[in-house]
Amino acid sequence: MPGPIITLTTDFGDSSYYVGALRGVLLSLCPEARLVDITHHVAPFSPLEASFILSQACPRFPEGTVHLAVVDPGVGGLRLPIIVSTGGYRFVGPDNGLFTPFFDGSEKVYRIREATDPLPSTTFHGRDLFAPVAARLAAGEAPESLGEPMGGVVRLSAPRPRREGRVLLGQILVTDHFGNLITNIHRRDLDPEADRFDVWVGATRVRGLARTYQDGVMGEALALIGSSGYLELAVVQGSAAAQLGVGRGERVRIAPATPS
Amino acid sequence: MPGPIITLTTDFGDSSYYVGALRGVLLSLCPEARLVDITHHVAPFSPLEASFILSQACPRFPEGTVHLAVVDPGVGGLRLPIIVSTGGYRFVGPDNGLFTPFFDGSEKVYRIREATDPLPSTTFHGRDLFAPVAARLAAGEAPESLGEPMGGVVRLSAPRPRREGRVLLGQILVTDHFGNLITNIHRRDLDPEADRFDVWVGATRVRGLARTYQDGVMGEALALIGSSGYLELAVVQGSAAAQLGVGRGERVRIAPATPS
Amino acid sequence: MPGPIITLTTDFGDSSYYVGALRGVLLSLCPEARLVDITHHVAPFSPLEASFILSQACPRFPEGTVHLAVVDPGVGGLRLPIIVSTGGYRFVGPDNGLFTPFFDGSEKVYRIREATDPLPSTTFHGRDLFAPVAARLAAGEAPESLGEPMGGVVRLSAPRPRREGRVLLGQILVTDHFGNLITNIHRRDLDPEADRFDVWVGATRVRGLARTYQDGVMGEALALIGSSGYLELAVVQGSAAAQLGVGRGERVRIAPATPS
Repeated sequence: MPGPIITLTTDFGDSSYYVGALRGVLLSLCPEARLVDITHHVAPFSPLEASFILSQACPRFPEGTVHLAVVDPGVGGLRLPIIVSTGGYRFVGPDNGLFTPFFDGSEKVYRIREATDPLPSTTFHGRDLFAPVAARLAAGEAPESLGEPMGGVVRLSAPRPRREGRVLLGQILVTDHFGNLITNIHRRDLDPEADRFDVWVGATRVRGLARTYQDGVMGEALALIGSSGYLELAVVQGSAAAQLGVGRGERVRIAPATPS
Repeated sequence: MPGPIITLTTDFGDSSYYVGALRGVLLSLCPEARLVDITHHVAPFSPLEASFILSQACPRFPEGTVHLAVVDPGVGGLRLPIIVSTGGYRFVGPDNGLFTPFFDGSEKVYRIREATDPLPSTTFHGRDLFAPVAARLAAGEAPESLGEPMGGVVRLSAPRPRREGRVLLGQILVTDHFGNLITNIHRRDLDPEADRFDVWVGATRVRGLARTYQDGVMGEALALIGSSGYLELAVVQGSAAAQLGVGRGERVRIAPATPS
Repeated sequence: MPGPIITLTTDFGDSSYYVGALRGVLLSLCPEARLVDITHHVAPFSPLEASFILSQACPRFPEGTVHLAVVDPGVGGLRLPIIVSTGGYRFVGPDNGLFTPFFDGSEKVYRIREATDPLPSTTFHGRDLFAPVAARLAAGEAPESLGEPMGGVVRLSAPRPRREGRVLLGQILVTDHFGNLITNIHRRDLDPEADRFDVWVGATRVRGLARTYQDGVMGEALALIGSSGYLELAVVQGSAAAQLGVGRGERVRIAPATPS
């Protein structure tokens, strides 16, 4: 039988010793674990971006997976370390809203009991606190033996799009590796009766919706529903971020196209 | 017995959810699979660079390995999704020439039968189409059960060097992480009788061939046959790309050295 | 029983075929191996940085782990290829000081016997020489069967801090992914009686020691003992490297705070 899966999501990058140390701790405490990276390149100190990535990647994993996520600007401070058990998964990380997409009312949350001997460092709870707990869960320990049930978790509220008449006002949430600009406007936010839309970002007007990233000539900007279900701005075989010169937080407006 | 190996080669980078989602799908459909990255940093939209990397890395893996490669500027368009079976490996990806180095006449090619329920997204066939097929192959399904035999695959033709008298004219194909400039001139293209060569790149003349990257003083440019078998330009403990100020496509000339 | 662990530490980056080829060789020669990356982003040609990373990450792994490290500016030259056996680990790499942190007098060192058929390349001993040896060790071969005992290894001496009266003079050794500046001043170098310190870096004076990275207002520079045990300069939710404009080699001074 293959070993238990632990996924890793951090903002540690890959040039320091941090991820290596984490992996060593996990394998020392759960030698059968299979470690799978989601990403170590979350924008530093951005639990909101991390929660978007987790929402897209975690549900693809088999039931039983332990998801370890450490994007933790408050390390060593008052934020609590938690385990969240829901939907067949266990999540381990700081209580800063990282796991908001998985809070559907059926989740059980546990405040992790901190070891006192040795005391964890105050600066690297990923290594000293979260990884040991993730490893023990993967090795079969119950959340109840590692923490106390608690309520009142922190939730992150991603900015939601706003409607003004027929216009929907949203914003760019994430820029991906290709320079595609992913917004907070979901497929289900759009008028299901409309078949063509105008999309404005800054002073640029983009026709939509395209069906694929190459529905246009090379270098043309287009809008489409990406694989996450959210509206994206893209450029055919290019980078929308570079060409449009915009990024996170930029406002995006969309409305059914007016016949011309 | 250790689980089947699936290698991953993409241009997805490592900052988005794309690779994480891919890994989740693979492990959900083939829980015993062992996932091994070749790279996720192929230059975006460059099947030619990907095919060079695959040609160097894939043959190092054990027989039976499934090589999943998704560098797919035409996703959602007319290009076909294929399985290539050859030399003890199965390759899975788009039919855009990625696998050209492995076409030796003995390969069998299958056009993947696309699922219709659910329909794959039009923008992320890596997750919705190629990963499921790679996982099923790794889990033991036969290519015949996943697609129909086909012929007439797309081939990429890397530019070949050209001979003008004693001079061989090539070009830079790839810049590596160290700034070494890898050309399309192979060891076997060189005059086997010559023991010294002059190499020109732009206006710079470089003496060759060196045997190792430090056959010179620090900062000296040199030419050598790299570990891929191709001629490279390098700088002793430095970056040839930065120092010579050139990159992909730049012309390179090489000729046996004239006695002086 | 889970397969043997081989960790990988290199300066190869992740955009070329180098790491993929390494992984293929390891799995071909030791099919049960579990490959775990420490990092492939050591600063190019910097055995000193690599040895710091190894010192922090390797001891976290279970006994029996094989640590393969290839940061090898002298590849193909006169430096020797070695196996170091100590503390339950086997290390494999070039004899250029990489493994200095693990030399405590109890280590056994072996000069690797080089294969002659086929001859390894002169430019990629990671693939052709070190990976095969690491795989064979992981598969159960004894160091004695792969090399000859030797003495007199190369040691790297990291610059040590110097004391001038009550002032300790050190320097920045490493900049991490967050822009934290890690110095060569260890916790045990500090006056254990003092409870407050002044830290100067360039013309900037920083109060210390903070307990966590957010012991201050956003954008404030602070000094603290990091998870490695060494003094670090950091900026609350920012990058000390960017804000202070300094990096490796910059001098740092620390002294007990004078009551004011």
